[in-house]
Amino acid sequence: MIDYRALEALVAVIETRGFERAAQRLSVSQSAISQRIRQLEFKLGQPVLLRTTPPKPTELGQRLANHLQQVQQLQQGLLLNEEATGQSVRIRLAVNADSLDTWLVPALAAAPGSDSMDFELLVEDQDVGLRRMKNGEVMACICAADTPVNGGLVQPLGILRYRAFASPGFVARYGAGQPLLMPQPPLAQLPCLIFNQDDRLQHRFLQALCPQQPEPQRYHISPTSEGFVRMALEGLGYGMMPQLQVAKYLEEGTLVDVVPGYHLDVPLYWHYWQTESPVMRGLRAAVVTMARDRLILATASA
Amino acid sequence: MIDYRALEALVAVIETRGFERAAQRLSVSQSAISQRIRQLEFKLGQPVLLRTTPPKPTELGQRLANHLQQVQQLQQGLLLNEEATGQSVRIRLAVNADSLDTWLVPALAAAPGSDSMDFELLVEDQDVGLRRMKNGEVMACICAADTPVNGGLVQPLGILRYRAFASPGFVARYGAGQPLLMPQPPLAQLPCLIFNQDDRLQHRFLQALCPQQPEPQRYHISPTSEGFVRMALEGLGYGMMPQLQVAKYLEEGTLVDVVPGYHLDVPLYWHYWQTESPVMRGLRAAVVTMARDRLILATASA
Repeated sequence: MIDYRALEALVAVIETRGFERAAQRLSVSQSAISQRIRQLEFKLGQPVLLRTTPPKPTELGQRLANHLQQVQQLQQGLLLNEEATGQSVRIRLAVNADSLDTWLVPALAAAPGSDSMDFELLVEDQDVGLRRMKNGEVMACICAADTPVNGGLVQPLGILRYRAFASPGFVARYGAGQPLLMPQPPLAQLPCLIFNQDDRLQHRFLQALCPQQPEPQRYHISPTSEGFVRMALEGLGYGMMPQLQVAKYLEEGTLVDVVPGYHLDVPLYWHYWQTESPVMRGLRAAVVTMARDRLILATASA
Repeated sequence: MIDYRALEALVAVIETRGFERAAQRLSVSQSAISQRIRQLEFKLGQPVLLRTTPPKPTELGQRLANHLQQVQQLQQGLLLNEEATGQSVRIRLAVNADSLDTWLVPALAAAPGSDSMDFELLVEDQDVGLRRMKNGEVMACICAADTPVNGGLVQPLGILRYRAFASPGFVARYGAGQPLLMPQPPLAQLPCLIFNQDDRLQHRFLQALCPQQPEPQRYHISPTSEGFVRMALEGLGYGMMPQLQVAKYLEEGTLVDVVPGYHLDVPLYWHYWQTESPVMRGLRAAVVTMARDRLILATASA
């Protein structure tokens, strides 16, 4: 049997980035922390922690830390009906930035028992998010892939609809007040906005509208959703944004639809483990309910 | 003399993530792209590009790509007075997330000639941002460090003021409507919000207010500024946020100051190169002007 007090010490060192702070958190001496981790390593015959500044888990150490989280989560499920366990449970989720910045947070708050959940959100591109799921680093993942990982299941959440938006000034400058379908200069030469080098939404937009030149010639990169929208508001470029995120600006007229009628749908899925604890089941229900309310119903696979 | 057409091909492959799309962008054949890069490698005696999917620059390749950007920027400076050069210049900046999501974007848009600037923003913690500056990967960097890198200069921008904010519901639940200075349970046991594991603002807050227990016992992690604020609005935790970012919510009363009178000041600096081009000088002036308007004047070093 693994020594779970040693795993607690390990996780405390990783999270607080030091032995001294880990000792503070667990209210034990610093030497007790060191000793527990040393004994764990002795038993396993491998290091679990690199003694760098800050200390870093080895691959085995990270696996053990993830394991402790899952165990704690199962414990939480056991104890949830008995009141006031006083224990909180860490829930690590990989999510896409646009969900985090639009509809997701109220769902987390609405989950039963959210008072005793500590959320750790990782914003990841789809491939990285799925890889973290596969490695057991996260308990659930929101992304556009519909194939479950090994040992996992998938529930469709709905569709996040993107349209190309820009400021009225931008449209006036390049499109003379017309939809930008036939602007001068051609669409691919106008500055667009992209989220990062993995973001292909603008490329898909150009592919659909001017397949002879699908590669944007000029683009700004903003790796935050909020910065992305602000760049559009300031007229620096046009870009694909979730309708949900910019509703207020559309109403105000500070953003306009660049090519009305064109949209791009990104289906979102909740990836979770077959060994789902009651806590995670409650969270999934809250997320699905919120998604039904805020996202567009997927017609086929839902 | 380096073959700049080969560097252009290299950068196009890196940015478009493929030889075919690079060829499209530069309006040449795919074999022309391959040949230029091969000749460059032959001349240098080292690979500049790993033929992976997508292709990735070697360290030398990345240095060459950065060099091309700097040369293009100098060219842009040369040509700026002659009208309609038709060329845009890529400006890569490392910035902190809170600046990007609050005051920075209007400054970028207000820079003279911003129409022909393509911004590539990298959101980085201070140390990483400075390292990118040192490596010549970015043309400027906004961070809290006041010591210039080798060959660089520093201009103070002002102070971003953080206070601890939470929803009224959160305060009522834990502090019975009172400031949270002496809440039950103790401050360090309330769930707080942190941006990522490198974010120490909440720790500094606890260090100041309850030095006997400076380590937060419970925290949520949201790696986007917007998600962070939304978590606070939903009552999931309290956290240190820029006053600038939440002014609207304070007015509405959907967020309140948890410990009125306590604030934490983060001074911001613009790091730039001694070999500053006219374009970058104009951008710096616009950023400094906007910072004066939106940030708090630093009393000492400014």
